[in-house]
Amino acid sequence: MEMDEYAIGLDLGGTKILAGLVNSEGQMISQAQLPTTSEDGEKAVIERVLAAIESVMSDKKVNRRRVRGVGIASAGVIDSKTNEIIFASNLGWSNVPIGKLIEDKFNLPVRLMNDANASAVAEWMWGAGKGTANMIYVTVSTGVGAGIISDGRLLSGIDGSAGEFGHISIDWNGPLCLCGNRGCLEIYSSGTAIENAARTALANGDTAISASLLHGSKELTAKQIGEAALRGDRFSIDILKRAGFYLGVGATSLIHLFNPEVIVFGGGVMNTAPIILQEIEKSVRERCIPGMASQVRIELNRLGVESGVVGAAGLLFSEWEHERKLQIF
Amino acid sequence: MEMDEYAIGLDLGGTKILAGLVNSEGQMISQAQLPTTSEDGEKAVIERVLAAIESVMSDKKVNRRRVRGVGIASAGVIDSKTNEIIFASNLGWSNVPIGKLIEDKFNLPVRLMNDANASAVAEWMWGAGKGTANMIYVTVSTGVGAGIISDGRLLSGIDGSAGEFGHISIDWNGPLCLCGNRGCLEIYSSGTAIENAARTALANGDTAISASLLHGSKELTAKQIGEAALRGDRFSIDILKRAGFYLGVGATSLIHLFNPEVIVFGGGVMNTAPIILQEIEKSVRERCIPGMASQVRIELNRLGVESGVVGAAGLLFSEWEHERKLQIF
Repeated sequence: MEMDEYAIGLDLGGTKILAGLVNSEGQMISQAQLPTTSEDGEKAVIERVLAAIESVMSDKKVNRRRVRGVGIASAGVIDSKTNEIIFASNLGWSNVPIGKLIEDKFNLPVRLMNDANASAVAEWMWGAGKGTANMIYVTVSTGVGAGIISDGRLLSGIDGSAGEFGHISIDWNGPLCLCGNRGCLEIYSSGTAIENAARTALANGDTAISASLLHGSKELTAKQIGEAALRGDRFSIDILKRAGFYLGVGATSLIHLFNPEVIVFGGGVMNTAPIILQEIEKSVRERCIPGMASQVRIELNRLGVESGVVGAAGLLFSEWEHERKLQIF
Repeated sequence: MEMDEYAIGLDLGGTKILAGLVNSEGQMISQAQLPTTSEDGEKAVIERVLAAIESVMSDKKVNRRRVRGVGIASAGVIDSKTNEIIFASNLGWSNVPIGKLIEDKFNLPVRLMNDANASAVAEWMWGAGKGTANMIYVTVSTGVGAGIISDGRLLSGIDGSAGEFGHISIDWNGPLCLCGNRGCLEIYSSGTAIENAARTALANGDTAISASLLHGSKELTAKQIGEAALRGDRFSIDILKRAGFYLGVGATSLIHLFNPEVIVFGGGVMNTAPIILQEIEKSVRERCIPGMASQVRIELNRLGVESGVVGAAGLLFSEWEHERKLQIF
């Protein structure tokens, strides 16, 4: 790959729009950030998306003609074939042809993907999965999701919905999930699950909850529980360990299905609670087929909050690279 | 693809060795079958494998130089990178470099894969998954396994062990499996599980077992239970329906992870008991995320016992096709 090739990555979130001009080494040369303010309506948000792209594309250091495409990372249900956002609850959007709007304005190829897939590509190309051909990135935040790299390519399925790791069932007779399934992994191990576990214990008057957990606040977030665990709060540690155990149960199924070299865990919950990783590893080592367990690493993510932007751009680089490799035959 | 290209497929089973000369339409032009007789030892079995290949390669109708490679389908743990059979309990083999032995003798490229992967390729290229890019083949026999086609390629993982669908957990607190995991799908839905369920009911003196099930025999095989179900035996029907329900629980997780167009079910248990398929479908429709469920078909396999041979050869065709496509860029 030549050094002077660039792609634009954009992370479309519920609170902010972050765009970056990314080089083929995964470095963000310039960036632009705007508030999403979805209350202003779809049209206004799209204007901001286009403005953020225009802003980074106008970087004086870079020849505009060396920008090869735009990658968009978005939460919600997306269709990567038609480049439409089918449904995004955080934006209040249904069936928005975001890809076409960007293509028409900038006359550049556009790739739309969900945010877990974008972070997976970032970790694979420039983070904890660098140099591997089979890697899975798992994000643990409000929900649980995954981006899967298999034999050197992002697994997308028929419309880009592959990787719904939070909705595999780890108990066929477990609680009903909003998705319609029972016993979904997410019910046991997401940030929401961690908060629910703590709230239930509080409501039951569980005296094990120490003052250090609440820390003067009435609310109870997964972040607070993570911080309390870091301060040594026994109750919080136990809740997080339990979530880690269940994530290990799910990770074992991933290993048996995909035979990967590394599973990388990221997302808000992992960042505040490194103790979870040890429990995931323990649960995997206990349960996984030995020959497959011995070949897989369990790691924390290395890239930060910009992984969505960097990975969305990275997908374009990886696709060019793939085409180029094939020309060598 | 030119019409006069051929590949050899060989299915190395515990009771027989079946080799076939396969054309690029998936037709077996000639075949050779030999008993495996693994009691004679590794060396003797390898001689028979080489003899079976030599036999089909000597077909007078075909120019030997048009045979482009050999695909081997084998049960057990294989390493598709080194082309070694790591462990095959039905042959009593450990670390046999079968791929290298064939390569040395015939000077042809060799691909080693497990038998579920071979059947997956066969169904994908010439059976129930024809024309799709995202298909999963599930085999339900003594155990449960899968071969996964994703974005037009067989998913192999780092050493070809991907697809261990029978060992995803559908109950984190379920019974211990021989593999080390708990609540593996295979414990609830394999041929062995079906036999165990019937035996347990018999041992408990369950009067619901009708004479039509045992049919004069003292043994109780999944095949018998399937046949009794076809004759309308209520008890057998219920056992098979339960297995189908659990397969649907597992299939739902596959759909959420892979976003496929079709899941094809085959293997001995499916062949004797079509009633299972209805239960799988019902369980999937009840549990799967609606947007993904509406896009996926649940189907029976179309190819018969030769799917291992045809698919092993097919993998070589699909790889050439893939290289060829890439040269067009």
